[in-house]
Amino acid sequence: MMYTDSIVALATPSGAGAISIIRVSGPDAIEIGASVFKSIKNKDLKQQKTHTLHLGHIIDEGKTLDEVLISIFKGPNSYTGENTIEISCHGSTYIQQQIIQLLLRKGCRMADAGEFTLRAFLNGKLDLSQAEAVADLISSDNEASHQIAMQQMRGGFSNEIARLREELLNFASLIELELDFAEEDVEFADRTQFHELLNRIEFVLKRLIDSFAVGNVIKNGIPVAIVGEPNVGKSTLLNALLNEERAIVSDIAGTTRDTIEDELVIGGIGFRFIDTAGIRETKDVVESIGIQKTFEKIEQAQVVLYLFESLKFKVSGSEYVTEIEKVKNKYPLKPVVIVINKSDLISSEETESLIVQLETLNLKQILISAKQKTGIDELKNTLLSFVNTGALRNNETIVTNTRHYDSLLKALDEIQKVKFGLESNLSSDLMALDIKEALYHFGLITGQVTNDELLGNIFANFCIGK
Amino acid sequence: MMYTDSIVALATPSGAGAISIIRVSGPDAIEIGASVFKSIKNKDLKQQKTHTLHLGHIIDEGKTLDEVLISIFKGPNSYTGENTIEISCHGSTYIQQQIIQLLLRKGCRMADAGEFTLRAFLNGKLDLSQAEAVADLISSDNEASHQIAMQQMRGGFSNEIARLREELLNFASLIELELDFAEEDVEFADRTQFHELLNRIEFVLKRLIDSFAVGNVIKNGIPVAIVGEPNVGKSTLLNALLNEERAIVSDIAGTTRDTIEDELVIGGIGFRFIDTAGIRETKDVVESIGIQKTFEKIEQAQVVLYLFESLKFKVSGSEYVTEIEKVKNKYPLKPVVIVINKSDLISSEETESLIVQLETLNLKQILISAKQKTGIDELKNTLLSFVNTGALRNNETIVTNTRHYDSLLKALDEIQKVKFGLESNLSSDLMALDIKEALYHFGLITGQVTNDELLGNIFANFCIGK
Repeated sequence: MMYTDSIVALATPSGAGAISIIRVSGPDAIEIGASVFKSIKNKDLKQQKTHTLHLGHIIDEGKTLDEVLISIFKGPNSYTGENTIEISCHGSTYIQQQIIQLLLRKGCRMADAGEFTLRAFLNGKLDLSQAEAVADLISSDNEASHQIAMQQMRGGFSNEIARLREELLNFASLIELELDFAEEDVEFADRTQFHELLNRIEFVLKRLIDSFAVGNVIKNGIPVAIVGEPNVGKSTLLNALLNEERAIVSDIAGTTRDTIEDELVIGGIGFRFIDTAGIRETKDVVESIGIQKTFEKIEQAQVVLYLFESLKFKVSGSEYVTEIEKVKNKYPLKPVVIVINKSDLISSEETESLIVQLETLNLKQILISAKQKTGIDELKNTLLSFVNTGALRNNETIVTNTRHYDSLLKALDEIQKVKFGLESNLSSDLMALDIKEALYHFGLITGQVTNDELLGNIFANFCIGK
Repeated sequence: MMYTDSIVALATPSGAGAISIIRVSGPDAIEIGASVFKSIKNKDLKQQKTHTLHLGHIIDEGKTLDEVLISIFKGPNSYTGENTIEISCHGSTYIQQQIIQLLLRKGCRMADAGEFTLRAFLNGKLDLSQAEAVADLISSDNEASHQIAMQQMRGGFSNEIARLREELLNFASLIELELDFAEEDVEFADRTQFHELLNRIEFVLKRLIDSFAVGNVIKNGIPVAIVGEPNVGKSTLLNALLNEERAIVSDIAGTTRDTIEDELVIGGIGFRFIDTAGIRETKDVVESIGIQKTFEKIEQAQVVLYLFESLKFKVSGSEYVTEIEKVKNKYPLKPVVIVINKSDLISSEETESLIVQLETLNLKQILISAKQKTGIDELKNTLLSFVNTGALRNNETIVTNTRHYDSLLKALDEIQKVKFGLESNLSSDLMALDIKEALYHFGLITGQVTNDELLGNIFANFCIGK
């Protein structure tokens, strides 16, 4: 598919900086560039080689708008696969606007969100899952999500899907062949081999589907509810974790996270800490609403950190144990970690008795001092132990995209139907239909099967200029 | 002067966008780039020509950080005059940080603010006033300031100074020659021609010094105090001006303007509208403090817009006239414009009597309806009439920089001393001293004379990455 119009957009973040990049792509990109550009060395932009840079001025009816560098990329050797120029101009908002307006007057059209990448996809430079990884890469804010996006952009995921699809296609064509010879009752497709293949596909699909849980965690961070009374040292604890890790506190614009959440990156994984009050028994109406909220937050969390003070535990230990038991009974599958803060303020005998009291709960206990920064490493390792990073470490393909997850689930469903059909000696023509369905869902992931609505949805989430 | 270290910085605005540019400059820039880059086509970056672009990956100990494009510029054909590479990477903050940290580990140093441009100056790629224009260009937010910065960056101002300096140098050397032959009492320098030259230099210097007033206005905008009672329609008026012009309301980060100021661009010139209350006579202490503040704001303003409602004028006309007279008497040199809003709500007879009443003040009167958008063009033209844009229209050199203005004043002072010396037959050796002083001040503007402190002050105001 070839576009006939040329698009323009600012490709760098808006606002003032040293440099801004304005990107133009389309059949006339170089001609349009040449019509507004005067080279320092009087070179004709249209005569220049691909992947070269040229210094000169952008001229608007005799008036110099800026001194710029223009990069030339000739299709298909460009990001979009089309002729492309990138104008590197001074980073003033005024200059950006003037140059873009000039290019619009010269025949460009303002690019839609993600349109450069959409064109790259339609021109076969990337498959659909690779194109989606570009947006993930730009929004990645920690090592793990960056690594997954990078792997996907470089085709890791697509290759895995493509391999399965090819093997399935191979069998599908043999089955189709059998249909042509239906009268003669021959079997071109070896049923044992086919069964083996289906098992293998089923195994890979299940692994990919399972990886979505960890992919989701990596992409969105792990919600951790910190349950603890006021002044128990929650913010000191967060700071201790932060200082230890020199982590980046999330400041991504446009995310609509609750303002009371703190995000820390520990071992390359994002953790979102959700502050909650305690949940002690009460008859006070207002307070019981607070308790209700705490329970809601625990529900949303994947891990619960139960934080209390060693000194207070000395006084109200049994009450605390009852309280924790209540949480444990309400959410039997939720991992609860008991964190005893200010552990440096009690004697070793007191510590011993505290541990004994908590042991009945059979939960992980960690003694820390947020202030002295002791026990922080153990807490970090415990948090990381809830993330199955095996797949990440082994460089396996991890699914992070809900759309891909959906398609994989549907493909698995179809593969299981085919398998059932094979096992119950279903006729070839019915099996062929199920195989086609499975192939369709594979194709949706890589974009071999596609439609305008799907593309619209995917690229609308991109930023303009990409 | 050659630097031995290589510097790195993000050159595009921080934050997420499609693309970010990381710039490296210095003798080892290309080698450092080559040590972290793996070309798609297995090209050796060190063997590539200047002004070429290369697709590949940034690799950190086997781990791929990003797919990037690297631009190569070989000194002296680069912005800084040194070897330079620009890495165009995906615009995630995480990726930016990872790549910059990698480059730091490979031997780069983080660039100081403006250090790329400082190196360009020290390597003779720009003179000092051109380097200063780069920062002006980036911060320009309207046509006039952009045009001046552009002209200065392209050497317009430097050329004018350089021409004067050369002619003066020519005479200075003749005068110096006379000193060598002092015994013989010869005059190599034609005194009449010299007097002519001094007059010419004096004329040009005065013109440049005068241009600073308009230059300052263009760079900083014209402060306009709007005096008027609450609900007289101030914000409707500002919106009417805004809509008419589709102007850019200033949103430059880091400027510490009063939050109640609105900035509009009218005819390419920035106007800053400062809201004030009225100044009617009162015995109330609190209110009289408000009146004091209004007077302070009028003092800061270059133009006063006296806004009132036609309907209220019918009732309190004479009070208003007294009030305006008070302002006029207090600031006899300040241009005051009387703006009568809601002029569509009174009859033509009432309008006539209103005009007659105001005529005694002998001030410019404009009837408008901010709501109906009538009279807005006349108001705009009136505001523009206070700016002497002649120099701008005629493409003359305009001084906007306080440092240049200072040097010009000092140079003028010295030139006038030389002229006085010439007229009073001062000895050549004394004149030679004054000429040298004048040349020194010319040199400070273009950077032919310079020192570390001066350079430090100038480049500290740049952004990092430029």
